[in-house]
Amino acid sequence: MTIEERLSELGIELPERLQPVGNYVGGIQVGGLVYLSGHGPRTVGADTIVGKVGGEISIEEGQRAARLVGLNMLSTLRWLIGDLNKMKRIVKVLGMVNAVPEFKEHPKVIDGFSDLMVEVFGEAGRGARSAVGMSSLPFQIPVEVEMIVELT
Amino acid sequence: MTIEERLSELGIELPERLQPVGNYVGGIQVGGLVYLSGHGPRTVGADTIVGKVGGEISIEEGQRAARLVGLNMLSTLRWLIGDLNKMKRIVKVLGMVNAVPEFKEHPKVIDGFSDLMVEVFGEAGRGARSAVGMSSLPFQIPVEVEMIVELT
Amino acid sequence: MTIEERLSELGIELPERLQPVGNYVGGIQVGGLVYLSGHGPRTVGADTIVGKVGGEISIEEGQRAARLVGLNMLSTLRWLIGDLNKMKRIVKVLGMVNAVPEFKEHPKVIDGFSDLMVEVFGEAGRGARSAVGMSSLPFQIPVEVEMIVELT
Repeated sequence: MTIEERLSELGIELPERLQPVGNYVGGIQVGGLVYLSGHGPRTVGADTIVGKVGGEISIEEGQRAARLVGLNMLSTLRWLIGDLNKMKRIVKVLGMVNAVPEFKEHPKVIDGFSDLMVEVFGEAGRGARSAVGMSSLPFQIPVEVEMIVELT
Repeated sequence: MTIEERLSELGIELPERLQPVGNYVGGIQVGGLVYLSGHGPRTVGADTIVGKVGGEISIEEGQRAARLVGLNMLSTLRWLIGDLNKMKRIVKVLGMVNAVPEFKEHPKVIDGFSDLMVEVFGEAGRGARSAVGMSSLPFQIPVEVEMIVELT
Repeated sequence: MTIEERLSELGIELPERLQPVGNYVGGIQVGGLVYLSGHGPRTVGADTIVGKVGGEISIEEGQRAARLVGLNMLSTLRWLIGDLNKMKRIVKVLGMVNAVPEFKEHPKVIDGFSDLMVEVFGEAGRGARSAVGMSSLPFQIPVEVEMIVELT
């Protein structure tokens, strides 16, 4: 089964691609790698989830936000490379949680992102990863993720 | 026009290269990529801007600090590769803002860095990017940036 | 002298490899590079050091934690590539310190990691680096580091 077929099977429709909110681009390909910019959980036409995880945002809400980040990133990636079937594997994920200072469960939150990638890409969606706590993120989004992927 | 000519045209003189402040080097080349260490806005012989953006440091001061970070990084890059004309493009920027917890305008601050890169390199200066909020940075500098560039 | 011989000479025995605490793997090899996931100072069978540097954790304790992070990462790396003699050099280190907002000495803390790498690998252990302050880290560990290494 191709990755695009797998997305259909899972009933996943990718959201409209987000435009960068500054002087940068959504991602850059160098050789067989694509460096994807930090993405948030914003969805075109809907209210954006904002707030700090461990504060006004629960772990479960943080996980849902992280999954939305993943969908947004796949939308950017498809736009960049034309076809998600060219994806070979996820190399490296930096998962950044906008959290209260005493928060401890960053890996659980970022699993909302990684679980989506493993659903879609299987074992190839399980990359190297860091999941860490930021004191603030743009617009006070609860989660931002950047990643590096390898193409076939 | 070469990049060195473009710098002259813009009236940009790069500052003296900063020495690393720990057990690391300013950058490492691997194949056609250069990984540049985190750089701050310190200028040799001048007082360093310190403080948190959204607190004692305004967005505009943060932008100016981010531009200084960019000048320092170009100085390191020229020293590393000998000649900025070897630059092909910016691949990935991680822009870290030392900000108060409620800060929202990280992209605007890091645009101070990215705008400089686009002035100097044109479209090749617009890379992938994340702009995020740190609770602290070394010496309480307001901005630190690391980046990956591709050489010709 | 090989790197494994150098470890013996230094009297360094690597700890048992840590298992990832989420849906990711310890590291990914792409071509001649290995991307290592964020590692903490946890040691199998011992209490984990927790707390914020500049608060309940001193700079010296932070440095010792950073050294433990390095040992854990070398253990993962040996498991991944089979033999540390395949290491060519450290490319890039992101050293993240769980610090109080007014903390200034991140480079000193992360030198606990970098000093170990230079002891083991010599000049090849001195890579590009950023050392920055997080408002929180998983389980409230005081230090987390991710890195990219090049193989021979």
